[in-house]
Amino acid sequence: MRVLSILAHPRPDSFCHAIAERARVALSRRGHDVVSCDLYQENFDPILRAAESATSGLDAEAAFDEIVDDPIHDYRADLVRAEGLFVVHPNWWGKPPAILAGWIDRVFVPGVAYRIETGEGMPEGLLNLRAALILNTSNTPGEQEQAMLGDPLESMWTRCILPFCGVTNGSRTVFGPVASSTARQRTDWLASIDGLVDAHFGVFGSQE
Amino acid sequence: MRVLSILAHPRPDSFCHAIAERARVALSRRGHDVVSCDLYQENFDPILRAAESATSGLDAEAAFDEIVDDPIHDYRADLVRAEGLFVVHPNWWGKPPAILAGWIDRVFVPGVAYRIETGEGMPEGLLNLRAALILNTSNTPGEQEQAMLGDPLESMWTRCILPFCGVTNGSRTVFGPVASSTARQRTDWLASIDGLVDAHFGVFGSQE
Repeated sequence: MRVLSILAHPRPDSFCHAIAERARVALSRRGHDVVSCDLYQENFDPILRAAESATSGLDAEAAFDEIVDDPIHDYRADLVRAEGLFVVHPNWWGKPPAILAGWIDRVFVPGVAYRIETGEGMPEGLLNLRAALILNTSNTPGEQEQAMLGDPLESMWTRCILPFCGVTNGSRTVFGPVASSTARQRTDWLASIDGLVDAHFGVFGSQE
Repeated sequence: MRVLSILAHPRPDSFCHAIAERARVALSRRGHDVVSCDLYQENFDPILRAAESATSGLDAEAAFDEIVDDPIHDYRADLVRAEGLFVVHPNWWGKPPAILAGWIDRVFVPGVAYRIETGEGMPEGLLNLRAALILNTSNTPGEQEQAMLGDPLESMWTRCILPFCGVTNGSRTVFGPVASSTARQRTDWLASIDGLVDAHFGVFGSQE
């Protein structure tokens, strides 16, 4: 399975980086083809500008074909080709860091992630993802996040973005609170990622 | 009242721009001092980088004093000085556009928007906002947003960000669906902003 890995955290020594690396190793050992994208390291430009936002619907599909020289084309092509997706990012104010918000704004566009049919009805999801796994870090206890804060990231990923693009096998796991965690706790969290990867991406062409 | 206006939409002819301008005029006519910030026009850099994210708690307050030459200082100072806030942005995938996500990431930092006390307990909100009004545009019908999508922006603003920073008088209004609206509908929506402004920011030193 071709799996696209998206990572968004400013500090290379972050727990998000450790999570993404653990998942990459687990996926590779199971024989998956992992395409890794560290948005900070790649200096991704997150700002959707007016010219890019002006296109919509079928116009956007035409625009997608026309801008093959634009770096954003490669990011869109990686998502179009992916059969699996995992995204690792911290919970910042109930939303992703801006650099990842912009990856969503610029990559999940009409003609790439979905198609709006003329007339009424739901959009047609265009992604070929057989599985999507969102891994977040947080410093808020889980029960507080859900009861007090409403856990907006859960709605954003599992109710807004993934279903809209035709992804029915999406799931999200939150690790935290990270700031107050012990080294032992973090080791256990990392170890649990192997099982998450197996559960969501299955075992294809194992090389072991 | 000193009111900070934050606008985030890539197209100058957007309905978001019309909303922000209507609110600015209404506030000015009521005698408020409006500080307007169009993040796209100002080419705001939304990426919170490692050096900036490394500081936390009281360290960040010291850092805030040290980086007065950095353009981000002015954005933080505008928020610290504001007695009222209104923010206008579209709903993109249940989150703000990346440029606004980054304004939140970089401006709502410890020592500016809140202070984490040592030990347990809630943070101390530091903002002096007597009122905050969030105005969003959307292309999803309101009942669908809430029932199907969970309305993550409502949680993000009114349960995560504003209460965390000590803002108890925060409110959010959504206009839409915009794409399918008539000119008459948009005229009515704009007219309703005068009343929203009065209800949230009151009448101080009217010049009429």
